[in-house]
Amino acid sequence: MLHTLLIDCSDRKGLIYTITQIVFRNNLNIISNDEFVDRLRNYFFLRAELSGEVNPQALVQELHEALPPEANIKLVPERKKDIVILVTKEHHCIGDLLLRYEYGDLNANIKAVIGNYQELETLVTRFNIPFHHISHENKTREEHDREIAATVNAYAPEYIVLAKYMRVLSSGFVEQYPNRIINIHHSFLPAFIGANPYKQAFERGVKVIGATAHFVNNELDEGPIIAQNVIQVNHAQSARDMAQSGRDVEKIVLAQALKLVFSEKVFVSDNKTIIF
Amino acid sequence: MLHTLLIDCSDRKGLIYTITQIVFRNNLNIISNDEFVDRLRNYFFLRAELSGEVNPQALVQELHEALPPEANIKLVPERKKDIVILVTKEHHCIGDLLLRYEYGDLNANIKAVIGNYQELETLVTRFNIPFHHISHENKTREEHDREIAATVNAYAPEYIVLAKYMRVLSSGFVEQYPNRIINIHHSFLPAFIGANPYKQAFERGVKVIGATAHFVNNELDEGPIIAQNVIQVNHAQSARDMAQSGRDVEKIVLAQALKLVFSEKVFVSDNKTIIF
Amino acid sequence: MLHTLLIDCSDRKGLIYTITQIVFRNNLNIISNDEFVDRLRNYFFLRAELSGEVNPQALVQELHEALPPEANIKLVPERKKDIVILVTKEHHCIGDLLLRYEYGDLNANIKAVIGNYQELETLVTRFNIPFHHISHENKTREEHDREIAATVNAYAPEYIVLAKYMRVLSSGFVEQYPNRIINIHHSFLPAFIGANPYKQAFERGVKVIGATAHFVNNELDEGPIIAQNVIQVNHAQSARDMAQSGRDVEKIVLAQALKLVFSEKVFVSDNKTIIF
Amino acid sequence: MLHTLLIDCSDRKGLIYTITQIVFRNNLNIISNDEFVDRLRNYFFLRAELSGEVNPQALVQELHEALPPEANIKLVPERKKDIVILVTKEHHCIGDLLLRYEYGDLNANIKAVIGNYQELETLVTRFNIPFHHISHENKTREEHDREIAATVNAYAPEYIVLAKYMRVLSSGFVEQYPNRIINIHHSFLPAFIGANPYKQAFERGVKVIGATAHFVNNELDEGPIIAQNVIQVNHAQSARDMAQSGRDVEKIVLAQALKLVFSEKVFVSDNKTIIF
Repeated sequence: MLHTLLIDCSDRKGLIYTITQIVFRNNLNIISNDEFVDRLRNYFFLRAELSGEVNPQALVQELHEALPPEANIKLVPERKKDIVILVTKEHHCIGDLLLRYEYGDLNANIKAVIGNYQELETLVTRFNIPFHHISHENKTREEHDREIAATVNAYAPEYIVLAKYMRVLSSGFVEQYPNRIINIHHSFLPAFIGANPYKQAFERGVKVIGATAHFVNNELDEGPIIAQNVIQVNHAQSARDMAQSGRDVEKIVLAQALKLVFSEKVFVSDNKTIIF
Repeated sequence: MLHTLLIDCSDRKGLIYTITQIVFRNNLNIISNDEFVDRLRNYFFLRAELSGEVNPQALVQELHEALPPEANIKLVPERKKDIVILVTKEHHCIGDLLLRYEYGDLNANIKAVIGNYQELETLVTRFNIPFHHISHENKTREEHDREIAATVNAYAPEYIVLAKYMRVLSSGFVEQYPNRIINIHHSFLPAFIGANPYKQAFERGVKVIGATAHFVNNELDEGPIIAQNVIQVNHAQSARDMAQSGRDVEKIVLAQALKLVFSEKVFVSDNKTIIF
Repeated sequence: MLHTLLIDCSDRKGLIYTITQIVFRNNLNIISNDEFVDRLRNYFFLRAELSGEVNPQALVQELHEALPPEANIKLVPERKKDIVILVTKEHHCIGDLLLRYEYGDLNANIKAVIGNYQELETLVTRFNIPFHHISHENKTREEHDREIAATVNAYAPEYIVLAKYMRVLSSGFVEQYPNRIINIHHSFLPAFIGANPYKQAFERGVKVIGATAHFVNNELDEGPIIAQNVIQVNHAQSARDMAQSGRDVEKIVLAQALKLVFSEKVFVSDNKTIIF
Repeated sequence: MLHTLLIDCSDRKGLIYTITQIVFRNNLNIISNDEFVDRLRNYFFLRAELSGEVNPQALVQELHEALPPEANIKLVPERKKDIVILVTKEHHCIGDLLLRYEYGDLNANIKAVIGNYQELETLVTRFNIPFHHISHENKTREEHDREIAATVNAYAPEYIVLAKYMRVLSSGFVEQYPNRIINIHHSFLPAFIGANPYKQAFERGVKVIGATAHFVNNELDEGPIIAQNVIQVNHAQSARDMAQSGRDVEKIVLAQALKLVFSEKVFVSDNKTIIF
């Protein structure tokens, strides 16, 4: 069976040697191995794919004893992640994810989709996935988010994906899922933070527009960036045309980011991502 | 001989017909022809390349009589533009422009280069172009800019190119050359306005960095954008690495923008560019 | 109502004037207008969007009388194109087109999908579109293509889209639909013509892979190219990984090409495309 | 002092452990570490940057004793590479390299430039680099290449860069410098192998053109690819316009490839490159 070993701790001499020695002693094969040292913070990151019979608790225990006490050590078996997706009305990101899921390209199980509008129910249920309509009308943000959290938590997902969910989540909600909520923002952050980025881009007369997938934290559009991409636009495009062109970038960037996260290739550190 | 005809005015029915009739009557051939109508402002733009014997004053006069009174009409003979370039210490943009100039790829005559430091004098003079060192030390911004203006004006350039000139020009200077000063900004505007954009980009942890060529107006980094492009970066790059990667984007984007402007392919309208 | 006027003929002085005069006389408004002259062949192309009340036959007749006798003149009312899609087993292109269709982003009506395997029937019928399974087993290529043609023709489509249809069409079939069959090829043509391009790309060790949307003619993979795009790959990717990465490029390039064709923005000339 | 350790050998369990143990025992710090295993060939590649006092011979000896006998082991001190550049008449690649060299961005010392024409002598000598004009006229390819080799060898370069050297080198010459000659080819290989790729691209009507930097071996344009990139083109561009657009891609791709090679980041294996 395959496992991914993820370690981060402050850097010191001999870390790779120490870790690979333990892996070798446990008779495991290193299929791939990546390290990165953040020189500014003197901090070490390692991701290794291991094959062979392993006793996870014992291995992690052995590593903990050999590494600095504050080291973060995770050993993750290879399997699809359970996720819940939040949507509003736009179809392009959720549609793309549903297709990837249906054909085994997503590396995740979509346990449910939650929408604050009903528009996408038909599409979602065609793919035999539960859709929950949780309207935000006549509710405070906190009330609404509590309802969503109750539904989300019933599925015990590892990640929550905001596939064009157009509301700001309350800090109470966000704090429950640190580095576990992934959003697609329809601009090349940090340009055009906030609402209506395509309109802002049109008004500024930019020649390139983009999309950004990032983890959500409590600063709006300020979480760690996972993936970004852009396309060229021109003066002949209206704000609406730009939004249409932008949709293809959004869906591809979101899918790229999810692939990275679900493959355990992303460390979050100091509001940035380390991507192996 | 080739001429480029540039017309903009409020839109109305029959404009193209009216214009091409006059062109036809003057026995000129339309080599290429582009139009654009800004629907939001109901405003018309036309660029046509004409071949044949032409009496420029007469043709422009005839067009003025047939078109709305506020129409802007320019007939520009095909020839290289005279330019003056301002630099500070960085070599990559000026070096690239000198090479293009030397081999006839710039569509411009570099009349002189002005630096607020002396660092680039050796490079510039190797290409047999006058270099003027005008230090900003112990001068107010206005005094310094007046000195630069005096030197610039002696060359009567059509355009001033800021090839990594790292000082903000005074509004008095900028107003003398409306839509005739072109700057390369080392970020994907409007992200990272102001100083040290690569440091800002590094700190934000972006996955894409870019460069923006724009006309200079009195709002810092807010002038009409001519060209933009980007490259992918990653967590392993320091702010200095990003700056190094960014240099190639900067020099290519600046050269692209100049090619467009010097070929009379750029209209400025409402703080945006229309590019044919 | 909006119409698109498409004219191509050998070039001569006064063409734009002649055409816009007739348009003006018919009291039509030119919303947009693009021309291109192929200097090597001395050949003229014009595309104009017209608004206003028009008698199509009369306008075309009037234009024919004023233009060179061999001129091609088309006046196309603005409406969605009827199309039939051919597939084999891969889902990513057809899935993407179904989603765009469902949400009105395709500018076409998908009348039916025909597959030489049954795999995609479930997906297609979820979107309420007829799926015809026409197996190629125990049939000659000509017999199979005649069956497909019979089914296609019953829908009288304007275009046939090959969304990863993995068989070569017989020349008899292709000739029935000149410049009306659009294919997505999973390589950056003309590199890796023929079967298994990702395997070829992997074996050659390329650093960039791409996709090409083109009209189909009787030379395999040699028809006029409509759109192309690429992504970076690296040594760590297997041929299978490259194919997976390539799928996103394929679906986006196919959609871009269809958008151009269905908006009447593509002229075919001399085995190339002119794209406005 | 910094050293780069490069090891490749057939894969087996414990390699990283064995290597990092020896590194640790020698009291060296691993600044960065990358591994790759080619699963198809069961072959292992490692690149590590080491800091600290090292006895190179002893370290390599110790590694040889611990690793499979056929292992390739190199320990390269951090320093600029000595190179000789071959040119013909085109200025854009050599000009770009001269500028990078002048400002310390090339990570190499240009010992000399050799041209089969005299055109670039003025440019090269401005940068205080020897230029040798070795005409090919009235010589067989072998005679000409022997003359070049004599001049090249006098400089004992580690790499030879073909910066738009437009002649095919004889196999006798190529075999002297295995994986040490780097060429920039003006197409997206393997499309448009051979002469005049921009003309071929124009005639095929492609929408994207590219450039490829590769090691030279005895099959024309078939050596291991180091870097590739592309730009969009359109129907309005002549073959000459495409060549002009292509020049910027060529010079940037060549510089990227050289940066990778000169930083010891490129393994050649089985006619492909592994790039860390």
